[in-house]
Amino acid sequence: MSETRQQAERARQAFYKLSTTSDRTAILHDVAAALQQHAKAIFEANQKDLAEAKGKIPEPLYKRLILNDAKLRDVVDGVKQIAKMPDPLGHVLEETELDEGLVLRKVQTPIGVIAAIFESRPDVVPQIAALSIRTGNAVLLKGGREAVQTNAALGHAIRESLEKHGIKDAVQLVSTREEVAEFLKMDDLIDLVIPRGSNEMVRSIQHSTRIPVLGHADGVCHVYIDEFADVDKAARIAVDAKAQYPAVCNAAETLLVHSRFPGRERVLKALADAGVELRDSEYGSEYLDLIMNVRIVGSLDEAIGHIHRYGSRHTDSIVTENPENAQRFLNEVDSAGVFWNASTRFADGFRYGFGAEVGVSTNKTHARGPVGVDGLLIYKYQLIGNGHIVATYTGENARPFLHRKTGGQEK
Amino acid sequence: MSETRQQAERARQAFYKLSTTSDRTAILHDVAAALQQHAKAIFEANQKDLAEAKGKIPEPLYKRLILNDAKLRDVVDGVKQIAKMPDPLGHVLEETELDEGLVLRKVQTPIGVIAAIFESRPDVVPQIAALSIRTGNAVLLKGGREAVQTNAALGHAIRESLEKHGIKDAVQLVSTREEVAEFLKMDDLIDLVIPRGSNEMVRSIQHSTRIPVLGHADGVCHVYIDEFADVDKAARIAVDAKAQYPAVCNAAETLLVHSRFPGRERVLKALADAGVELRDSEYGSEYLDLIMNVRIVGSLDEAIGHIHRYGSRHTDSIVTENPENAQRFLNEVDSAGVFWNASTRFADGFRYGFGAEVGVSTNKTHARGPVGVDGLLIYKYQLIGNGHIVATYTGENARPFLHRKTGGQEK
Repeated sequence: MSETRQQAERARQAFYKLSTTSDRTAILHDVAAALQQHAKAIFEANQKDLAEAKGKIPEPLYKRLILNDAKLRDVVDGVKQIAKMPDPLGHVLEETELDEGLVLRKVQTPIGVIAAIFESRPDVVPQIAALSIRTGNAVLLKGGREAVQTNAALGHAIRESLEKHGIKDAVQLVSTREEVAEFLKMDDLIDLVIPRGSNEMVRSIQHSTRIPVLGHADGVCHVYIDEFADVDKAARIAVDAKAQYPAVCNAAETLLVHSRFPGRERVLKALADAGVELRDSEYGSEYLDLIMNVRIVGSLDEAIGHIHRYGSRHTDSIVTENPENAQRFLNEVDSAGVFWNASTRFADGFRYGFGAEVGVSTNKTHARGPVGVDGLLIYKYQLIGNGHIVATYTGENARPFLHRKTGGQEK
Repeated sequence: MSETRQQAERARQAFYKLSTTSDRTAILHDVAAALQQHAKAIFEANQKDLAEAKGKIPEPLYKRLILNDAKLRDVVDGVKQIAKMPDPLGHVLEETELDEGLVLRKVQTPIGVIAAIFESRPDVVPQIAALSIRTGNAVLLKGGREAVQTNAALGHAIRESLEKHGIKDAVQLVSTREEVAEFLKMDDLIDLVIPRGSNEMVRSIQHSTRIPVLGHADGVCHVYIDEFADVDKAARIAVDAKAQYPAVCNAAETLLVHSRFPGRERVLKALADAGVELRDSEYGSEYLDLIMNVRIVGSLDEAIGHIHRYGSRHTDSIVTENPENAQRFLNEVDSAGVFWNASTRFADGFRYGFGAEVGVSTNKTHARGPVGVDGLLIYKYQLIGNGHIVATYTGENARPFLHRKTGGQEK
């Protein structure tokens, strides 16, 4: 058995242990404490990464790589928050009495072994590790090459805490792309892949595995300014959606404007004043920069058709004072987020109130939009009988089922 | 654009229409009526299929191919039941006030375009079509070669009903395997694949598409008879799980017996009396026949380890009077169904009380175990504001979010 396969096997065994231990909350508190105790080693490792990266990577990436006192405090606070969340495992989502003494329970469970692959930011390691521990999933973590020493120091602190509880391998770091490529083939051992990073990285992973992938490659978001839009709101929302932070997936890439909207010039001027360069034909492009496509449309239908054709089903917003048009947009646009008179930039787990975010999904199954802890959970059915057999319920004198809902609560 | 791609494009457009029309219930009633009106043509087509299949396919398959008066009545009743189900679309699962005047709603939606691929049984066509219409999904249906004329007649009646409402292409029949192979590549147009049939067929589909696949290839189910099992219950459950209907995925394939269980001979004799041939080493095999592996284990841990190694995460049952052992089995076995003192044969959407069944899933994401209408649904987030922008909630004087749960109900 290859080294990587052994690693995945250890993750699987650790998942069985982690999902059934009563120590998960204690482990999370231990992780928070260990990250503080190892602060010096973590900062030293980060300094080495920074020294090597200096001048070699773009400035925004370099900034994200920095792990200082304030950022580590945020990381530790984040882990503590996750430790305080109620344990989601074992929660009964539905309970049905199938017949006298035969009770079916739909019970919340972890998914299994997760492979999380992401770029530079070292704060992702403790965040994803803590979310995985909270939900009873084992995780294989592959971070960016630039953060390798920082990630190793963070991983050391996390695994030390897990080791105290005999489940060290519930969190494992993966070093190379070659190993990732091998893991992506192990659909018998790994249950979910979560990539976070550039479009190219995510798309390459989506194309090279049969394991379900939770995430999004593109964020081609639209703001549609309807014929009946308020001019002030239109300008505010367009500028915020594009320019408030253009480097992220929920920033808008295309502005659709109804031909009869009277404030077009005002809105375009507001965008230009915010430093936005306007273009008019590269509709599928995700610029992640102060560049925006503008298209004049003749109707709401044309706007919706445009979004379905060129969008990435991430987040799209209509600006209008006409409730019928708004409702049509909210119903008909097939995206994870459909907004009315609000900036696309709200599409985010923290803003939605999920506490912690796993990522944003443009999938049509399992989890859609910003994904919180729920995205790392599934369920199993427990059936408790007393010698019940199916023969009793079939044939000529078949006994009927009761199917009486007796309890449980979704989420 | 190829003919198949045009077909998938038409399905996509039909999905947009079907998901937003208020006619879905009316369409379902029309489908039920049309199936009755076209009964003569359907039976004639079925007779032709039967005449061609006679002697060429195994007897059980031939029997399943028969669509007589009684069976058509069941099919029509099934469609009527689905017509009476409450409309699941638009249901608000969660509602949160992010801030004054900024309301987030998690709303139930269809998935999109589904490709359903199955073998012989013609009753699957109206069943899957009706479930898809109920949930607002468009569906491409590929049935077995043997049922091609019956399926065409059923499809004609269904599409005639849809055409009255201008959405004919929400249900489309697919004729050849070559076309299926092309559809499996269209992950930009098709959102979910549901295969139902032989292990080989399902596995081949799982291996040839990047579209999410809902289903199961193998049903390697186990009955574990614990040291503390009641002998009568053990014999009843083992016989029911194996012999009540061996050709299905929830029938048990392996019997694990604790070495100190005193009733071993009684149970093995009961199985032999039921015509079951006992073997002892082909642990991963799915016989779908009156053949069963028997393995003696030394502990509950060994039984759980065996199930994790050889099982297919479908359904596994423990027979015991010891509640601690039962609880450990229910918690630790990582299968869609984990049963205590009940036959594995209960793992079925109708027995679980789901009304209609899409299939059984051994996936670890989206839907697990027997899947009802829920498996064809997902959600989107609607955000309703009044000119709200993210800039207000960031930086030095960031306004805090409220995140006040104001309504909604999961499921």
